[in-house]
Amino acid sequence: MSSTTASLDPIVKAVATQFDLGTGLTADRPSLKRPLSAMRGLYADTEAFEAAVAAGDPLSYEFYDFDVPLLETEVAYGTSITYPGKVGDEYYMTKGHFHTRLESAEIYFCLSGQGLMLMESPEGDVQVEEFRPGRSVYVPGRYAHRSINTSASEPLITFFAFPGDAGHDYGTIETKGFRTIVLDRDGVPELVANPRWAD
Amino acid sequence: MSSTTASLDPIVKAVATQFDLGTGLTADRPSLKRPLSAMRGLYADTEAFEAAVAAGDPLSYEFYDFDVPLLETEVAYGTSITYPGKVGDEYYMTKGHFHTRLESAEIYFCLSGQGLMLMESPEGDVQVEEFRPGRSVYVPGRYAHRSINTSASEPLITFFAFPGDAGHDYGTIETKGFRTIVLDRDGVPELVANPRWAD
Repeated sequence: MSSTTASLDPIVKAVATQFDLGTGLTADRPSLKRPLSAMRGLYADTEAFEAAVAAGDPLSYEFYDFDVPLLETEVAYGTSITYPGKVGDEYYMTKGHFHTRLESAEIYFCLSGQGLMLMESPEGDVQVEEFRPGRSVYVPGRYAHRSINTSASEPLITFFAFPGDAGHDYGTIETKGFRTIVLDRDGVPELVANPRWAD
Repeated sequence: MSSTTASLDPIVKAVATQFDLGTGLTADRPSLKRPLSAMRGLYADTEAFEAAVAAGDPLSYEFYDFDVPLLETEVAYGTSITYPGKVGDEYYMTKGHFHTRLESAEIYFCLSGQGLMLMESPEGDVQVEEFRPGRSVYVPGRYAHRSINTSASEPLITFFAFPGDAGHDYGTIETKGFRTIVLDRDGVPELVANPRWAD
């Protein structure tokens, strides 16, 4: 149902988007897809990484960008789906990013699956929170953040929202990585210093 | 799991909150509760309203405020639970509000239940979108917005997020109401001009 009873058009119309709660996907627009090959340099085990890319380059995560205006009064939002899998012992994860407007916070709400939100400030403070269904995680301003799927079988599906003018700085992580990585140690996630981290 | 590996404290710590996906509630903090009596003057059928208040004043909705700093770089968030019920033929609903910083948008994500998001600009443009599980509704800046539960049996549960400096203006709706109300007409929601709306 959608109804407009007056002729004054708003600058931005209300918009509804139907997501599938089982997959996290919507048919309303294409997702942004990140096959493993988009993650070159970010996984610790480069040999396992190149082997996985050569063996079919699986989709590691996808998410949506609804192109809201880049204004502080708007709210950017979407779902993010990180698939189960590992490169060597390292769980599938998102690239992770700082916000271009560094002090911008972000809220995540976990719809299904399990995992971790890894957060790191420019000064090296690391914070980690768990994702479980129904769990929100507030990412403080100034923290780079990355979703990590620690389940062996289920996608990690989150809904996210952040100020419309925050922007994404992926380059810092692409160049330097996170100081901490998360490995599967006999079925238990373990935080380990990133051997490839570059100051 | 929560881990801090460096001594630099962030201004705002990461915070995780576990919500029950069945009820929308969390044990982590008290909700803000709105019994019917908090809605005096907002339902069209005043006789049915006073009778319901006298007969036990049922809880019509509740929601959370996580007290994030009132800054444009922060994100206010929480769940909102509107219970099933009617006052006369009018469905249970939230009070509804403009943002104090009027141009601030808001995003809702429906976790369960069904209903409507009723939106109205100061100039009288009315927009309506449906809530169903997995459906996001983007409320444009400048629009007052109210959640309405059109289910006979299920709570309407949403997760919401908006810029930290948006603020709530409830007074305008308390004084004037919305131009449009939604009534149950033989099981079908119908938009009707509000007989009590005051310009």
